[in-house]
Amino acid sequence: MSLISDLRSLLTIEQVSQNETVVNHHSRDESYHTPHNPDVVVYPHTTEDVVKVMTYAKTHNIPVIPFAIGSSLEGQVIPVRGGISLDMTEMNKILEVRADDFLVCVQPGVTKDQLNAELARYGLFFSVDPGANASIGGMTATNASGTTTVRYGVMRDQIRSIEVVLPDATVIQTGTLAAKSASGLNLTGLFVGSEGTLGVFTEIWLKVYGIQESTIAVRATFESVEQCVKASTMIMGAGIPVTRIELVDEAIMDAINRYKSVEYPVSPTLFLEFQGTQKSIEYDVELAVTLMRDEGLSSVETVKDEASRRKLWDSRHVAALAFRASVKGKEQMATDVCVPLSKLPAAVVDATNAIKEHQVHGGIVGHVGDGNYHAILLVDPHNPDEMERVSMVNEQLVRFSLACGGTCTGEHGVGLGKKKYQLLEHGSSLALMQAIKHLIDPTSIMNPGKLIDE
Amino acid sequence: MSLISDLRSLLTIEQVSQNETVVNHHSRDESYHTPHNPDVVVYPHTTEDVVKVMTYAKTHNIPVIPFAIGSSLEGQVIPVRGGISLDMTEMNKILEVRADDFLVCVQPGVTKDQLNAELARYGLFFSVDPGANASIGGMTATNASGTTTVRYGVMRDQIRSIEVVLPDATVIQTGTLAAKSASGLNLTGLFVGSEGTLGVFTEIWLKVYGIQESTIAVRATFESVEQCVKASTMIMGAGIPVTRIELVDEAIMDAINRYKSVEYPVSPTLFLEFQGTQKSIEYDVELAVTLMRDEGLSSVETVKDEASRRKLWDSRHVAALAFRASVKGKEQMATDVCVPLSKLPAAVVDATNAIKEHQVHGGIVGHVGDGNYHAILLVDPHNPDEMERVSMVNEQLVRFSLACGGTCTGEHGVGLGKKKYQLLEHGSSLALMQAIKHLIDPTSIMNPGKLIDE
Repeated sequence: MSLISDLRSLLTIEQVSQNETVVNHHSRDESYHTPHNPDVVVYPHTTEDVVKVMTYAKTHNIPVIPFAIGSSLEGQVIPVRGGISLDMTEMNKILEVRADDFLVCVQPGVTKDQLNAELARYGLFFSVDPGANASIGGMTATNASGTTTVRYGVMRDQIRSIEVVLPDATVIQTGTLAAKSASGLNLTGLFVGSEGTLGVFTEIWLKVYGIQESTIAVRATFESVEQCVKASTMIMGAGIPVTRIELVDEAIMDAINRYKSVEYPVSPTLFLEFQGTQKSIEYDVELAVTLMRDEGLSSVETVKDEASRRKLWDSRHVAALAFRASVKGKEQMATDVCVPLSKLPAAVVDATNAIKEHQVHGGIVGHVGDGNYHAILLVDPHNPDEMERVSMVNEQLVRFSLACGGTCTGEHGVGLGKKKYQLLEHGSSLALMQAIKHLIDPTSIMNPGKLIDE
Repeated sequence: MSLISDLRSLLTIEQVSQNETVVNHHSRDESYHTPHNPDVVVYPHTTEDVVKVMTYAKTHNIPVIPFAIGSSLEGQVIPVRGGISLDMTEMNKILEVRADDFLVCVQPGVTKDQLNAELARYGLFFSVDPGANASIGGMTATNASGTTTVRYGVMRDQIRSIEVVLPDATVIQTGTLAAKSASGLNLTGLFVGSEGTLGVFTEIWLKVYGIQESTIAVRATFESVEQCVKASTMIMGAGIPVTRIELVDEAIMDAINRYKSVEYPVSPTLFLEFQGTQKSIEYDVELAVTLMRDEGLSSVETVKDEASRRKLWDSRHVAALAFRASVKGKEQMATDVCVPLSKLPAAVVDATNAIKEHQVHGGIVGHVGDGNYHAILLVDPHNPDEMERVSMVNEQLVRFSLACGGTCTGEHGVGLGKKKYQLLEHGSSLALMQAIKHLIDPTSIMNPGKLIDE
């Protein structure tokens, strides 16, 4: 009982918990990875609280695993070696909105939706949309992206500065608030995507954007997934500034129809969004439709009013959920490769074939403007044969991606599930990553077992 | 003579030089910093050549300073401790153009103009334009930016992957060719901007863009620099996707008129560029002019044909040269702070006052859409009193910038000249930068004396 009493004496009684429900909640994320309990859950309120916990953890060599919403998809928040699950959800204040600078400073527990609700009052929005209502801290730690990345970039592109409590309990502030800088080594970019293995984020300065004048959404169907992807590549090649360009395959469209009681054509579909001044986006939509016709467009629907747009995007957003609901008693494993744009049609055809070949129940959705797609594979985790076949599909997709210069994970991160591909992907640079991890966290107390093998 | 004979035996006789003219050429850059000769100049042709030189340098503890065009502005290429100036200009091949992927692979000695000439054949262009016809290796090392950064981002935003020869002579490849990745620690971003202090770049994969359909250039004059900057901030705030938005003050406009024999109004001026589809940019220009009128626009010229646009931008590009030519016998020292956008009007007013107060001959140009501006200060380096006054102006501008969350250098880099501000700017995170430098280059043979004090 010394762990809990020590931590309670450093903080307050309410900030430290070993309640079974609480501990269980902190043992898992939204992935198929096996849960593991932390020894204790701690709720810091301030940077000073985090410093106290980190000093204690360093002295006693106890793992510290930052946690917030638990929406990670590769086991990033699972305390595989026990220790302290550091729940950041009570550090959830929006500290400063600087509308004139298009900047905002938040604590890590602030969620994406919470931030956007506040920013709307200023006519602003935060661009990264990974689907889940994730925390900004978690999105920073995993370099999250999503449907709007094709236009606005990934999480790393939005971050100006991070306050980090390092494993030795010192506090640093990376970067500045300037739009660009050529000063010093780029630590901000190094901490973004480090999955809690290099320190705990306590404040984050983010870039935000003005809400655009007009929005048009388009749903376009094709005969094949390959045609969809080729049409997407043509639109990107023409430099049309789409805000979103998303693929949903036939199997998943069918699941959406049943889940949402809608009647969309059961065909490979592109969902597109255009934002800007009304005149400019009308022109962009016209051009995009012309290009899609060249690639064999079957049907197209253009919607402008907010209710219809919401309905259309809601269908895309529930895709994974709808697909999982379409087969009873299965969990979902999503692949996440990202390939150079020109390789995407072949990659998606290869994935479709792999799903057929290994007789897996799977469908494909993708952020096709970035070359990033997910094969959503439904699997019974208690069926070893099925798990094996799903694993072979995953393996084949990753190897295809790496062979053509892509990555094993475009946005879900490494966590536990993609560690086995790190040497293949990074080659001799993996040793340098390990050396940097060892430099910053020599006793490996920060989220051990994730991202990089020490 | 063992240094030169050793290196010649490792490479070829022609690849190693101690010719006085050659050595002198490698002793300086375009800054006011004191030149220092290297002991020898080496011209590698392949990654393998670089590995040989690095192995030798490591064994004998000899400094290695990557060099190409020598256009750095803070002494980055000056061999302050002698050693090997590693001239990359003979590694100047464009290795691969992947038009479908909007990617290109180059050797570090390829120049910006050379690359753009080749890309034009594919309807593509490389976006970063720092003014000088710099090498891609140098631009990568300093995280260069320039006039188009407001639209396309800095050098770091363009780089997918770098082949680096580390100080221990191992070769790594950072990143992948995918548009986004959440795999591993972000080493690419760490090497970009490291100013040759972490290794030698031997291959660089860059993002390129499709040439836009139409371009419109605008020259707009105002009564005060403050009005210019406020108008710029309004245009940025409205989300108009300008390609360039540049400030030139009255003193420098006067110098341009005399240097180029043109007759522009001698007033604070904004130069703007808009690129996109013809309809959309006509609308953007209309909106921008309306916003500028609200801020007190005096006169405006809109030009569409290529010859007139070239003439207009040529005036902006020669600004520093014209200003230097306006006073005989002076060298130029340029400040390079970058501040959050809302602080820019006050920063520019403060700079104007500082120039007056210290009786320095100075003018202001700026990439005002990014919050980055340069006070160009003319100085006789042999006049200690004048040097002292120029130095006080520089100091005042940097302190103003850091106090409002900005950086001491937006794009010129740290080199020798901004090292003294690193602790003030980075605080406790400077120690981590130093630790990373020490980790990668424990004996400090890579460009010693620059960026970070070991």
